[in-house]
Amino acid sequence: MRILVLNGPNLNRLGKREPHIYGHETLQMIEEKIVHYATERNIEVECLQSNREYEIVEAIHRAEDEAFDGIIINPAAFTHYSIAIRDALSGVSVPAVEVHISNVHTREPFRTNSVTAPACIGQLTGFGSNGYLLALQALIQLKEDVN
Amino acid sequence: MRILVLNGPNLNRLGKREPHIYGHETLQMIEEKIVHYATERNIEVECLQSNREYEIVEAIHRAEDEAFDGIIINPAAFTHYSIAIRDALSGVSVPAVEVHISNVHTREPFRTNSVTAPACIGQLTGFGSNGYLLALQALIQLKEDVN
Amino acid sequence: MRILVLNGPNLNRLGKREPHIYGHETLQMIEEKIVHYATERNIEVECLQSNREYEIVEAIHRAEDEAFDGIIINPAAFTHYSIAIRDALSGVSVPAVEVHISNVHTREPFRTNSVTAPACIGQLTGFGSNGYLLALQALIQLKEDVN
Amino acid sequence: MRILVLNGPNLNRLGKREPHIYGHETLQMIEEKIVHYATERNIEVECLQSNREYEIVEAIHRAEDEAFDGIIINPAAFTHYSIAIRDALSGVSVPAVEVHISNVHTREPFRTNSVTAPACIGQLTGFGSNGYLLALQALIQLKEDVN
Amino acid sequence: MRILVLNGPNLNRLGKREPHIYGHETLQMIEEKIVHYATERNIEVECLQSNREYEIVEAIHRAEDEAFDGIIINPAAFTHYSIAIRDALSGVSVPAVEVHISNVHTREPFRTNSVTAPACIGQLTGFGSNGYLLALQALIQLKEDVN
Amino acid sequence: MRILVLNGPNLNRLGKREPHIYGHETLQMIEEKIVHYATERNIEVECLQSNREYEIVEAIHRAEDEAFDGIIINPAAFTHYSIAIRDALSGVSVPAVEVHISNVHTREPFRTNSVTAPACIGQLTGFGSNGYLLALQALIQLKEDVN
Amino acid sequence: MRILVLNGPNLNRLGKREPHIYGHETLQMIEEKIVHYATERNIEVECLQSNREYEIVEAIHRAEDEAFDGIIINPAAFTHYSIAIRDALSGVSVPAVEVHISNVHTREPFRTNSVTAPACIGQLTGFGSNGYLLALQALIQLKEDVN
Amino acid sequence: MRILVLNGPNLNRLGKREPHIYGHETLQMIEEKIVHYATERNIEVECLQSNREYEIVEAIHRAEDEAFDGIIINPAAFTHYSIAIRDALSGVSVPAVEVHISNVHTREPFRTNSVTAPACIGQLTGFGSNGYLLALQALIQLKEDVN
Amino acid sequence: MRILVLNGPNLNRLGKREPHIYGHETLQMIEEKIVHYATERNIEVECLQSNREYEIVEAIHRAEDEAFDGIIINPAAFTHYSIAIRDALSGVSVPAVEVHISNVHTREPFRTNSVTAPACIGQLTGFGSNGYLLALQALIQLKEDVN
Amino acid sequence: MRILVLNGPNLNRLGKREPHIYGHETLQMIEEKIVHYATERNIEVECLQSNREYEIVEAIHRAEDEAFDGIIINPAAFTHYSIAIRDALSGVSVPAVEVHISNVHTREPFRTNSVTAPACIGQLTGFGSNGYLLALQALIQLKEDVN
Amino acid sequence: MRILVLNGPNLNRLGKREPHIYGHETLQMIEEKIVHYATERNIEVECLQSNREYEIVEAIHRAEDEAFDGIIINPAAFTHYSIAIRDALSGVSVPAVEVHISNVHTREPFRTNSVTAPACIGQLTGFGSNGYLLALQALIQLKEDVN
Amino acid sequence: MRILVLNGPNLNRLGKREPHIYGHETLQMIEEKIVHYATERNIEVECLQSNREYEIVEAIHRAEDEAFDGIIINPAAFTHYSIAIRDALSGVSVPAVEVHISNVHTREPFRTNSVTAPACIGQLTGFGSNGYLLALQALIQLKEDVN
Repeated sequence: MRILVLNGPNLNRLGKREPHIYGHETLQMIEEKIVHYATERNIEVECLQSNREYEIVEAIHRAEDEAFDGIIINPAAFTHYSIAIRDALSGVSVPAVEVHISNVHTREPFRTNSVTAPACIGQLTGFGSNGYLLALQALIQLKEDVN
Repeated sequence: MRILVLNGPNLNRLGKREPHIYGHETLQMIEEKIVHYATERNIEVECLQSNREYEIVEAIHRAEDEAFDGIIINPAAFTHYSIAIRDALSGVSVPAVEVHISNVHTREPFRTNSVTAPACIGQLTGFGSNGYLLALQALIQLKEDVN
Repeated sequence: MRILVLNGPNLNRLGKREPHIYGHETLQMIEEKIVHYATERNIEVECLQSNREYEIVEAIHRAEDEAFDGIIINPAAFTHYSIAIRDALSGVSVPAVEVHISNVHTREPFRTNSVTAPACIGQLTGFGSNGYLLALQALIQLKEDVN
Repeated sequence: MRILVLNGPNLNRLGKREPHIYGHETLQMIEEKIVHYATERNIEVECLQSNREYEIVEAIHRAEDEAFDGIIINPAAFTHYSIAIRDALSGVSVPAVEVHISNVHTREPFRTNSVTAPACIGQLTGFGSNGYLLALQALIQLKEDVN
Repeated sequence: MRILVLNGPNLNRLGKREPHIYGHETLQMIEEKIVHYATERNIEVECLQSNREYEIVEAIHRAEDEAFDGIIINPAAFTHYSIAIRDALSGVSVPAVEVHISNVHTREPFRTNSVTAPACIGQLTGFGSNGYLLALQALIQLKEDVN
Repeated sequence: MRILVLNGPNLNRLGKREPHIYGHETLQMIEEKIVHYATERNIEVECLQSNREYEIVEAIHRAEDEAFDGIIINPAAFTHYSIAIRDALSGVSVPAVEVHISNVHTREPFRTNSVTAPACIGQLTGFGSNGYLLALQALIQLKEDVN
Repeated sequence: MRILVLNGPNLNRLGKREPHIYGHETLQMIEEKIVHYATERNIEVECLQSNREYEIVEAIHRAEDEAFDGIIINPAAFTHYSIAIRDALSGVSVPAVEVHISNVHTREPFRTNSVTAPACIGQLTGFGSNGYLLALQALIQLKEDVN
Repeated sequence: MRILVLNGPNLNRLGKREPHIYGHETLQMIEEKIVHYATERNIEVECLQSNREYEIVEAIHRAEDEAFDGIIINPAAFTHYSIAIRDALSGVSVPAVEVHISNVHTREPFRTNSVTAPACIGQLTGFGSNGYLLALQALIQLKEDVN
Repeated sequence: MRILVLNGPNLNRLGKREPHIYGHETLQMIEEKIVHYATERNIEVECLQSNREYEIVEAIHRAEDEAFDGIIINPAAFTHYSIAIRDALSGVSVPAVEVHISNVHTREPFRTNSVTAPACIGQLTGFGSNGYLLALQALIQLKEDVN
Repeated sequence: MRILVLNGPNLNRLGKREPHIYGHETLQMIEEKIVHYATERNIEVECLQSNREYEIVEAIHRAEDEAFDGIIINPAAFTHYSIAIRDALSGVSVPAVEVHISNVHTREPFRTNSVTAPACIGQLTGFGSNGYLLALQALIQLKEDVN
Repeated sequence: MRILVLNGPNLNRLGKREPHIYGHETLQMIEEKIVHYATERNIEVECLQSNREYEIVEAIHRAEDEAFDGIIINPAAFTHYSIAIRDALSGVSVPAVEVHISNVHTREPFRTNSVTAPACIGQLTGFGSNGYLLALQALIQLKEDVN
Repeated sequence: MRILVLNGPNLNRLGKREPHIYGHETLQMIEEKIVHYATERNIEVECLQSNREYEIVEAIHRAEDEAFDGIIINPAAFTHYSIAIRDALSGVSVPAVEVHISNVHTREPFRTNSVTAPACIGQLTGFGSNGYLLALQALIQLKEDVN
């Protein structure tokens, strides 16, 4: 099982960026946590962070071409306006799970609107960095249920 | 660790009710799955389904009085209008996780608005009955992170 | 043919309650009129009025379990916010007809919005207590058309 | 008792026009059904279908001048914008009943908004061609109640 | 000086139609009053009432072709949706004045919105049948000011 | 017959102020024109311009106390927010006519919204300074109609 | 003089529930304070708290049947969606006063919208538990004014 | 204890102004009632009515400078647009209570929106002139609670 | 191949009507251009301009009955409100192309909303009279693609 | 004559991406079709697809600098939010035509809103890959009309 | 060069008023700072603070009459509703700069809407009292650029 | 003191791009003007223009890492949708000033909405290229005030 983990703009600043909202872990620490959790479960994970919308769009395309089994995506700011990412997700058959570190329901009103979520199978919000592990778990369970 | 699992109106009809949206498992099957999953992890779970808003409100009160460690709540239809449940959740210190079986982002527009989510620590949507297990996992991880 | 007639909150006050809007008949008089009309047509009718949302939700569940042929429902105030009743109606295969005594189109703007009507086969509004008889007639005709 | 039955634009295409929404009966079949039903009850019915807003407006005027006892109107597309028909209905003392063949509550959002309904005594929606018979019944009952 | 007076749908029912709103004068009485007022001032007036949108549209076209000096228009219900009349008024160089008998600002909210007024030089509302005389006066003064 | 003519803020700048919108006449010229027109018709006119909301409010109060027969008011900018003036007009029995020099329907969208018009008997817009004369005419005709 | 004091959902948690918003008094303390205040003024008070919408609806019905002189109601969360309570209040002739402990104008925007207030004679918000005493005072004064 | 009672525009017309809404008492009668009620309770009251926004703004400033213990304010029409009064109230430490004579919840929709209430400790609406006495009582109780 | 070209209200005034928006060609010139272009491609074209909504509705009906291969329609003002035309287009199987002479995206905001476009296969806007030729080309290509 | 054909994000996935919406042709096939069509008409075409907003912005700049005669642009997802592309188009004098493969009027509501169309001379939607050929034709005709 | 500095309601309370928002400087200190800064640059400054809308309106009129070279205006609360000030600014040819001490974009949503800014050449927000100096600088640079 | 000056998409086209809105200076001229102004004040300035959202996001990150003292940012089109830039600005401690060359308050309505301004200390709009110098001045004054 191969999973692509995509993180959107400014998430390379985790740890430094508004830690009262996003916590003190760096992205590197989170990615290592994901890889460790995945390896224990015999899953291969590829992580990509990008501030570039097109890199995320093209990574989603690649997920299809290289037959990944699932996508975990935290589109960050792109959640709220990148219809390009939504269209990319809609255009592939790889199941995607949307993750948000903070609980968007308790922040600015615009943050509850996700243009990308309708193109995912589900969404997790508010669980900090654990959200990524839960998303991984969700994709594993999905695969088990299908098989 | 003790967790209260609350299911809102019509969820007693799972399996029979619109299976193309909510799947073929009955609530009993889902609750057994949760209990099994929890027992393996040494967690005590109490499950309650109710079509009565006040029973859910009072169960939330009881979660505080009886010192539960967490609440997993699928408010079902109440998600969209029960400010009473929101206020109950805001009024207790027990952390709550909101679960939806279907992906609300792909259904009627009113289903994306949750009046209860701002009173929870997080929300999971779209993972079928697995969402409850993920929510349990989220509460375990939360406890571990705090300790 | 068996029909379940459901009346929502405050309709137990008919006759006393704002008679310039709802008329002078009591609920008992209306229910007797329905039963009389039904008996003449060889139809069995069960009437339930409740101020409790969950009783209406569970009566709808029971309509399915006990194989009623139709539901006539005046959700009263619940029309405008009880997504629980909507979901109950969507979750059963018994055809339902929504009835309003007054013409909601000539009252406060919020009264034209029905959250329950999309889960019914049709809606009647403005015909006073006769609306229930017409709804019964509609269900009879529906059955004849199907057969 | 004399009743005027008015049908708005495109209803002359019934049977051919989107039968999954409007059914397979032609307007002629429906009008015959209405006339038959009325004759049995000793009621005189005049039927008019028109794609012309002004013909409907003027038919409503005539209903008053010729002392009809009631109007049954399916304004079709005009339901949603013809304030001229609304004003015509408001300007006469003949009671009118609005009928829709399909359940407008389950279609495009704009179809739930009726500019004409506030000028009618009531509205029926979703009962197919039977809606006309129910409307006739409603007008008969109304007359009986008044007498 | 030649003026075209246009009256929209249902205004042929003046006197009969909701007299508490529109007064007791018939359209014929109002038109005679206008003609009398105009003749005294050496102005030729042509009056047209129509329930047909296209007749009003084409009368506006004709006002240009026959070099009328002004249009007085009470679009009645068409005020609120006939963009066809708006476009007709915008497309001619004859100055138009919009008249409403009742004070639209004290009625249903939708009546304050005029799609035709932006294509007129001005609007008068609330002066009963005198509004037409004032509109005539306005066109006379406009001509005097231009000369 | 005694009429109070009230002009709101910035109208003391007429002639200088955006003449492409408001024309080249000064307020003094307009007031003289009104007085001249009134005197010819044996009507006494008192004119007041003020940039002060309270002066207009209190002038309206005085119109009642001193038994004026009518008010002509161009509230200018106050049209769009002075509920104080609206309440003053509603609180007196003197009939008021609202006048706007420019056609508000062809300017910024907020200018079509009048909070004061619902407290007047009618409104005139777009006739330049002639609007005041027409308003005077309207009040004369109103008085004649009442007598 | 007999007054019914109704408190809605979660108010049984006063003292424990978000004390920075609702204060430190328990509901029992507040009810005793009300009873004491009433007894001094020779008024009989009956207090009811319920998390159940229908209990509040039916208590309002009972207030009419048992000829109470007034209702003091803090509908809590129900304020914002319980049209059933609104309809119950509209359907009785007992005057009701709506009380809110906190100043709803300084909280989440949805809290300023009361669906129940239009069915009351007045509303008090922001005075903590004193609001109930003021409401009692208001009902006393109302009675005095009527007598 | 010293209280400043502020009344906004048009309230000097009480008794004459729309008595079906505002009652038959004059402002002088109400102010005497307040003074009498206050004197009995050993409270000094200063009353000011003004149609001028700035006088109310500056009276609020003075309330701080002269160390008043509370403000009772009925901003009347200013309630709905005077952000200047809101800012004045926010800028002083004197607690203010907002009073409305009529029940704003049963009138035009715009009257339920108060721009000033968020800068007050609470609001009373619908109790006629008794509202001022209740507001006084509220300020007394507030002081007692603080001491 | 037979194509029906429909032009809505005021388009008979092309050339005269606001030429800065709609250009200097008359409708006759445009229709000749279309016919010439079609004849060269061996296509039969029938052109109809009407200010009457019902003539356009009925022409659409006829397009089906007479087995036209396509409809080119410029609904003009009807674009924005004629649900009757939308329903007519939805009710036939003849493919339709919507054409607008001017670029509606650079004009009044209401002009970007087309109620008829959802019932067409496509829309062209902004190409002047050439838009009709392009629409013809589109229908030819559509036919070629299908064959 | 030289034309720049720009395709936005995800259009490199044509053929694979949601073929029920976008068809089975790949972008390469479409580009070859455009080039072939253009070459036949002696027109030079340069095609660029990019998932990068800035590449499209800069290609538009280049179209001006290299004196292209026209731009054909399918901004895809960018249509709905890229004000940067809108500003780029507004800032050059090269005429642009906006193309959409699917009929945006029959899809999600947000797809009917184009932020880029106001900066183009026209828009085509719903003609599949033929839309590009029609756009080319439109630019040829525009040039002929100008010359 | 002569500049008029206008400050709106409550700004006379600077230093005392919500210092966490507006800072600790008094208006006198700020005005002295402005005068000092201006004198150094050979500019004459006249400062006016007023809680009276009309004084600000009339000061703007005077700026034109006395040939000031620029206006610096902090309309304070009036920013959000005083169309009278907007109209005054639009009606003079003196360039005006709008200043806000706090960053309105981080406060209540209504504070980002300025009705006066469209009548100014520019706006500065968030720079504390330095904003006035920057505005002065802006007017100096504007004059230099023009010369 | 070191300042980073960031310019968003299309600003590399200044001078050529809509000069009636943005003026005739090229970006190079403006940057030289800024550098010259800064050098005179002993400030080091680094200028970056980019049409790439991610370059601006990453430049903001770098401003923090390289300890710049301030950011001057004209996000151009990104102002209205780039939540990525907003989040970047919120995530650094370097103070930022937003600059717009034109007065956004007099252009299309969408241009008054800035998603980035809430993450800046202030905003300047309408001062042409001088806005950058004023922003620089603002950052200098800010530093002086802090020291």
